[in-house]
Amino acid sequence: MSYAPFDWIDDEARRRADAGLVRTLRPRAAETELLDLAGNDYLGLSRDPEVTAAAAAAARTWGAGATGSRLVTGSTELHAALERELAAFCGFEAALVFSSGYAANLAVLTALTGHDSLIVSDAGNHASIVDGCRLSRAATAVVPHADPEAVRKALRAHGGRALAVTDSVFSVDGDAAPLGVLAGVCREAGAPLVVDDAHGLGVLGEGGRGALAAAGLAGGEGIVATLTLSKSLGSQGGAVLGPARVVRHLVNTARTFIFDTGLAPAAVGGALGALRLLRREPERAARVRDVAVELHGRLVAAGLTAVRPDAAVVSVRAPSAESAVRWAADCCAAGLAVGCFRPPSVPDGISRLRLTARADLTQEQIATAVDTILATAPLPVG
Amino acid sequence: MSYAPFDWIDDEARRRADAGLVRTLRPRAAETELLDLAGNDYLGLSRDPEVTAAAAAAARTWGAGATGSRLVTGSTELHAALERELAAFCGFEAALVFSSGYAANLAVLTALTGHDSLIVSDAGNHASIVDGCRLSRAATAVVPHADPEAVRKALRAHGGRALAVTDSVFSVDGDAAPLGVLAGVCREAGAPLVVDDAHGLGVLGEGGRGALAAAGLAGGEGIVATLTLSKSLGSQGGAVLGPARVVRHLVNTARTFIFDTGLAPAAVGGALGALRLLRREPERAARVRDVAVELHGRLVAAGLTAVRPDAAVVSVRAPSAESAVRWAADCCAAGLAVGCFRPPSVPDGISRLRLTARADLTQEQIATAVDTILATAPLPVG
Ligand SMILES: Cc1ncc(COP(=O)(O)O)c(C=O)c1O
Ligand SMILES: Cc1ncc(COP(=O)(O)O)c(C=O)c1O
Repeated sequence: MSYAPFDWIDDEARRRADAGLVRTLRPRAAETELLDLAGNDYLGLSRDPEVTAAAAAAARTWGAGATGSRLVTGSTELHAALERELAAFCGFEAALVFSSGYAANLAVLTALTGHDSLIVSDAGNHASIVDGCRLSRAATAVVPHADPEAVRKALRAHGGRALAVTDSVFSVDGDAAPLGVLAGVCREAGAPLVVDDAHGLGVLGEGGRGALAAAGLAGGEGIVATLTLSKSLGSQGGAVLGPARVVRHLVNTARTFIFDTGLAPAAVGGALGALRLLRREPERAARVRDVAVELHGRLVAAGLTAVRPDAAVVSVRAPSAESAVRWAADCCAAGLAVGCFRPPSVPDGISRLRLTARADLTQEQIATAVDTILATAPLPVG
Repeated sequence: MSYAPFDWIDDEARRRADAGLVRTLRPRAAETELLDLAGNDYLGLSRDPEVTAAAAAAARTWGAGATGSRLVTGSTELHAALERELAAFCGFEAALVFSSGYAANLAVLTALTGHDSLIVSDAGNHASIVDGCRLSRAATAVVPHADPEAVRKALRAHGGRALAVTDSVFSVDGDAAPLGVLAGVCREAGAPLVVDDAHGLGVLGEGGRGALAAAGLAGGEGIVATLTLSKSLGSQGGAVLGPARVVRHLVNTARTFIFDTGLAPAAVGGALGALRLLRREPERAARVRDVAVELHGRLVAAGLTAVRPDAAVVSVRAPSAESAVRWAADCCAAGLAVGCFRPPSVPDGISRLRLTARADLTQEQIATAVDTILATAPLPVG
């Protein structure tokens, strides 16, 4: 008998190719001429000399790796410092650092629920939240996007323990969740509210303290935030912020914390360096929001369709999946890196160009970006 | 109505305290006097100046973070270099780097299975494999530890697509899986064999090429390996090794790859530095195995009970959970860091001291470690 355990993979690859949906890796060089409106380095800190020096110093002082689970040899005083400063900055009692934002979401959704639980999850939530729901032993009710009334109904209909979870800023359209109303709905139902502030930290709130600080909810009794250190803080890793007892509970029960190697010292040091820089230069947060609004305003004035950005993500509609892909490729050929969202990554079937504002973009770069997007647009524009 | 959404957490915390099962974080300083037989830095590379310099240089050259998903802005030529060199070193066609070994296991188990699939999983497999099984849409058959006949039966009983998954070296007892027999069983059933070589890379095989190279299975058609960069390579991150088509499939379908920020450049650079050092100094792999065998031999000669180590993990039985905890604490007070496994982390209910050998331990340090373990042993020994 022939042994061909992966032939089905070729069939799937062929189907992807026929549908024009093949994804390939395009490794970049250290220095490129491309103007980057595709990454999530919202504050431009990933390449900041102070931040990279902090990362490098941490590697030299603490080692290239954490050497074990945070519960064995993997917790350093550097991890503790980042946890202290992150919690204080965002206005929470305690923080716990993970190896990624993905792992942080898996941790919270599995450790704060049980067999009898319900998770009420926004239809637009990030993949890591969707996976956290699946991995938990809870039932999941997926509610329509940004619909607190649907959350209220779902919580009411459930007898046992429940929580609601939402992105603070949604990846696809860059719109913000109605956090104040959601918190009220959760409080009324006696349920915690888990907010993934991946795209809010460093962008929303006074000095970039995040969406929960902006909504006056940071540190609230039933409020848990998850973060990534890989966007505004320009590094890698994730964190959970909340009451100290929640953090202690995660230390004792969250599998993606207990059975995972601690975040590498360089990533901890880089994030800490970025946080300290942001504290000293709080205007970076306002700047990235202004850049997003300006990008949006100019593109809409020229006839494109885009949702007004609530944070740093500017999402521009494309007439079709094919034209979105071509548009992004044409931008790239013209020296501008932009993202492209298309089915199946978009819940509503509408393809988009996805632009991310950066605090360190100059007015000239903004003008160049807008010109390039308009010059390559698939529709007659203007 | 009072809002107390986390009171149940206090109840659970109380139950943990009553059972003596509370876990707390003890952040360590950069330099400690403790002799470390608890971490997973098997080759002593995490603090090697060449490795930390490679990590630091990567942060300075490439930035503190990858800035996005590997599919958007997060793939650098440094990632590509690590993938190339890892695949070549371990004897596989292709490799794909993830943000953690945990994420690599979740990726493989979800992306290589579907609704109709069966995963046959060893009862002793790592938590990340267990979670990967849960997260997948496949059915899971958990088979007794190290029992290829049970794997054969489970595969035979299933009609559709199936795979078997095993740790190469098991965390609890440090014993090796019967990879050759398992590969034969899988080949016979037309199923791939997924091997988590977290504890084999850098330790087993010629020059540390891993358990699959040691078994003559590396690069086999149906063989997929998952790795962590956080143990022998002293850094952070994970990888999948296998046929190029499997890697391409993961790039296109694995959610923990697509929706996760790329591994930070410093972690990539650190792992690459460690890999290059290991290629130059292949004797490190043999040394760590010798150290493990020596630790085991001396402890057993003194009357302790321990499984002969197949790799770097030496597991010593303790008479009870309480005595294991006290033993580890007494070792620590005497300057020796050791791990401690107890229920519910041990499948058989037997508590253990868990020692990890390191290639850079001196004979004097080995003697000190043995003396300390014996002097603090809960049983009359010798
Ligand atoms: C909303 C959201 N949550 C979580 C994550 C995952 O964070 P990380 O990349 O640190 O795993 C991301 C993106 O990466 C995200 O956009
Ligand atoms: C067998 C095994 N697989 C996977 C992992 C997870 O790897 P990582 O820590 O890189 O997430 C570990 C330990 O951490 C492990 O021991």
